[in-house]
Amino acid sequence: MTVAQPATEQYKVFEINLTGTSQGNPYEDVVLSASFFNALTGEKMTVNGFYRGQGRYSIRFMPAAIGEWSYVTHANDSTLDGVSGSFVCVLARGNNHGRVMLATDVQRGTVLVTGEEENLSYRFSYEDGTPYQPYGTTCYAWTNQSEDVQEETLKTLAQAPFNKIRMCVFPKFYDFNTADPEMFAYEGSMEQGFDHRRFHEPFFENLDHRIAQLDALGIEADIILLHPYDKPEWGFSDMGADDDMFYLSYIARRYAAYKNVWWSFANEYDLMPQKSKEDWRRYARVVMANDPYNHLRSIHNCRILFDYNESWITHCSIQRIDVTRTTECVSDWRKQFHKPVIVDEPGYEGDIYWGWGNLTAQEETRRFWEGVLRGGYVTHGEVYIDKGEQLWWAHGGKLHGESPSRIGFLRSIMAEAPADVVPIRETPYASEDYWDVTVMTSGEDWRLFYFGFNASLYRDMVLPENGEYTVDVIDTWNMTIDRLPGTYHGKAHVDLGRKQYMAVRICKVA
Amino acid sequence: MTVAQPATEQYKVFEINLTGTSQGNPYEDVVLSASFFNALTGEKMTVNGFYRGQGRYSIRFMPAAIGEWSYVTHANDSTLDGVSGSFVCVLARGNNHGRVMLATDVQRGTVLVTGEEENLSYRFSYEDGTPYQPYGTTCYAWTNQSEDVQEETLKTLAQAPFNKIRMCVFPKFYDFNTADPEMFAYEGSMEQGFDHRRFHEPFFENLDHRIAQLDALGIEADIILLHPYDKPEWGFSDMGADDDMFYLSYIARRYAAYKNVWWSFANEYDLMPQKSKEDWRRYARVVMANDPYNHLRSIHNCRILFDYNESWITHCSIQRIDVTRTTECVSDWRKQFHKPVIVDEPGYEGDIYWGWGNLTAQEETRRFWEGVLRGGYVTHGEVYIDKGEQLWWAHGGKLHGESPSRIGFLRSIMAEAPADVVPIRETPYASEDYWDVTVMTSGEDWRLFYFGFNASLYRDMVLPENGEYTVDVIDTWNMTIDRLPGTYHGKAHVDLGRKQYMAVRICKVA
Repeated sequence: MTVAQPATEQYKVFEINLTGTSQGNPYEDVVLSASFFNALTGEKMTVNGFYRGQGRYSIRFMPAAIGEWSYVTHANDSTLDGVSGSFVCVLARGNNHGRVMLATDVQRGTVLVTGEEENLSYRFSYEDGTPYQPYGTTCYAWTNQSEDVQEETLKTLAQAPFNKIRMCVFPKFYDFNTADPEMFAYEGSMEQGFDHRRFHEPFFENLDHRIAQLDALGIEADIILLHPYDKPEWGFSDMGADDDMFYLSYIARRYAAYKNVWWSFANEYDLMPQKSKEDWRRYARVVMANDPYNHLRSIHNCRILFDYNESWITHCSIQRIDVTRTTECVSDWRKQFHKPVIVDEPGYEGDIYWGWGNLTAQEETRRFWEGVLRGGYVTHGEVYIDKGEQLWWAHGGKLHGESPSRIGFLRSIMAEAPADVVPIRETPYASEDYWDVTVMTSGEDWRLFYFGFNASLYRDMVLPENGEYTVDVIDTWNMTIDRLPGTYHGKAHVDLGRKQYMAVRICKVA
Repeated sequence: MTVAQPATEQYKVFEINLTGTSQGNPYEDVVLSASFFNALTGEKMTVNGFYRGQGRYSIRFMPAAIGEWSYVTHANDSTLDGVSGSFVCVLARGNNHGRVMLATDVQRGTVLVTGEEENLSYRFSYEDGTPYQPYGTTCYAWTNQSEDVQEETLKTLAQAPFNKIRMCVFPKFYDFNTADPEMFAYEGSMEQGFDHRRFHEPFFENLDHRIAQLDALGIEADIILLHPYDKPEWGFSDMGADDDMFYLSYIARRYAAYKNVWWSFANEYDLMPQKSKEDWRRYARVVMANDPYNHLRSIHNCRILFDYNESWITHCSIQRIDVTRTTECVSDWRKQFHKPVIVDEPGYEGDIYWGWGNLTAQEETRRFWEGVLRGGYVTHGEVYIDKGEQLWWAHGGKLHGESPSRIGFLRSIMAEAPADVVPIRETPYASEDYWDVTVMTSGEDWRLFYFGFNASLYRDMVLPENGEYTVDVIDTWNMTIDRLPGTYHGKAHVDLGRKQYMAVRICKVA
């Protein structure tokens, strides 16, 4: 049987849906895959399928190469075996740039100027070469909320500046966040227990839908596969290694074809001592074996950083471990791990009683600027306990804080920065003049200085004598950019108005 | 010749004034000392005298023991040799508690409860046993300003909460601080050079007077003996080791008898590479040989901490070396050096262009609270460049900032704390509950919690189940203390109003 399918866009999900046995436990018993072949490029890929209940099976494939792809299925159930078909993959359009990858992987094969490889090591890129800078947020359990809250979350995200979201598969049990979800990932119930070998299809259909909706909004789904905030009646944090791996294999087979998926193996792995370091490594191997697209992978800490030098980890996903010195540590972590650094928990805007969730919007915004200008990436969260039923960080819903608009302002400024900007501390331009200011630089042509909580009346900026430069005074809190009249060389006297959270940008114009 | 003198109070200066040769260079040629003997206690001390120009010589002595002291002079000038006399030392009165010493030196011989020695290691005490907690400020060159500015500085200090001042002997050349003083420490002139073997008596008479005035105000004079902020026409930072030691010997002989003197061998020693580590050690020996009272000694850094474990150093005098994490490091420095930790430059309130001097008053105050509650001490400075001609940090004059009153508020709160308070991290009471809050504790009976820049709506404070506690909500910025009605045990729900810079104090009352 050969079925011709409608055309699929590059990097989007091509799905084969089949019907087969529902006898026994197909989740465990049926082994299904499909081989895909592109006659134009000669490329061949095999991807694993998954069961979805009631005799229904799916295989999801994300084509990168354009042209006609043919496929044939393989299965230990004869009704699923040998199904063939084809579809045409057409060029990506609009906002579709494919997966987010390590910049070094995207640029592989490109001849780079000396030093550029080192800089690329700390960056991400869409697979079509478009730069990607994560400006993430956090809604741990948003897909475990009621339908209307989920819809509201998506509406909020559509207006927000975020292009990545940290989200769990399993529900979360923690302060202000103790309700049972309407659906669970497994068949069974809290009263009678869950069957860790039978997934609950409606739960995953909702997750499919939500991940696709995030993709449509241009938001990467940083999926937290396991986490410690569990309750005994749920028990998803302590299923044992075999069930963990059964689950991880299923998740990878079901979601790897979504271009906007990242794998975060754990939130706060160190609060799950029941899982060893070696467990995490083999969990990663299970996911990698079922993810032919090599999506980004990391693991997140509470108090003890994981060793991000381990080869299965593509980037750092860090929670600050000091109350005061937070995203400033990006400089250290870059040196320590030589991978992109995302500070996924720098502390959150809000008024909860814990120090991780009672930052002013000013401090939250400051941590973004510090981290980004040091060559890292920072993730937002919000935990106001007196502004409505939902707390964004756990439930989603509405945003109430003042930092998101400022984060968007920073994002817009960084989007305009030259491609080769680096933290000045890592360049020959580093100078004692900059001990108290965080600076990104592109050679001597473009610089962005951030003064953080320091409040100066003015500062004389040192400029090269050769060339002419424009000087922009940026109020990162009030989101204004004021260009000083004329152009400057040698020195520019910059009035900073004794205000905190100021930045200065200089650009060579002649 | 025996001269009976009027009675002198304990710890105050008893001065012998003599007339002798003015031939040659008496600063170099004449060796003068006096032996003092207290018949009541059998105590005997020898102190060195100093020349003060025009054939005048002085020997200054600070008696600690009451009763009659007799003395006899020794000199290589026969007119100065063999002069004897006596005076009666009477009990200290009023605010006179003697020198500030290491608490361990004052408590020597006292039987301590286990653990108390360790706690004492980080503290100061007046020699009569009265506790002393330094709340210092900084006016580097105040005695090098015009007469009226010096008088204004004293008037300001009389109203300020400070009980220590960092001050240089030599003038300071630095931004906003480039004027030549009216007087220099040496004979000579900027045009013709200075004679490093002949001191200028009017300069030192002024310094005598100013140190005595500080003492009358209860302010310790933390005298900075050498510093790098010099200009070529002055040259006092680079006189060479022999002249440095000639100067240091003179200073020690002239000022050691002032009870309120501390020796700070350098401001920012690491900016004077012309002086080796071994130079500083022998400089210390010169001062110690001429200071029979063993005044407190330290040395201050710019970017590289001195090794405060060196035995000649009594306490740490630190400049923060990180822009963000400043007095938080007190916890580390206590462990590293096992001596009292003074953060003499935590950054200053002001609006100068450098990050060390453009802190908001809120941030300056926050650094005080952080440092003090971690068991250290913090020193104030102020550098507003748009509030008058004088910048307090260099010239003295008037204070304009908002932190001094808050520092006074902190001082008053700490003055009421039990004598045995320690940072909770160093006690068996340390708990994960306190990872985000800085806490001082006296067992379980008294605790002071500081929440810094975090802004919580409320926090439930954990209290012992046994006993009853009062709970005070302290707004460290608005300087209010609100006691919650009633008493509490087990738990107290404390409304913090989503405000930054809040503290909570609990006291056992039953």
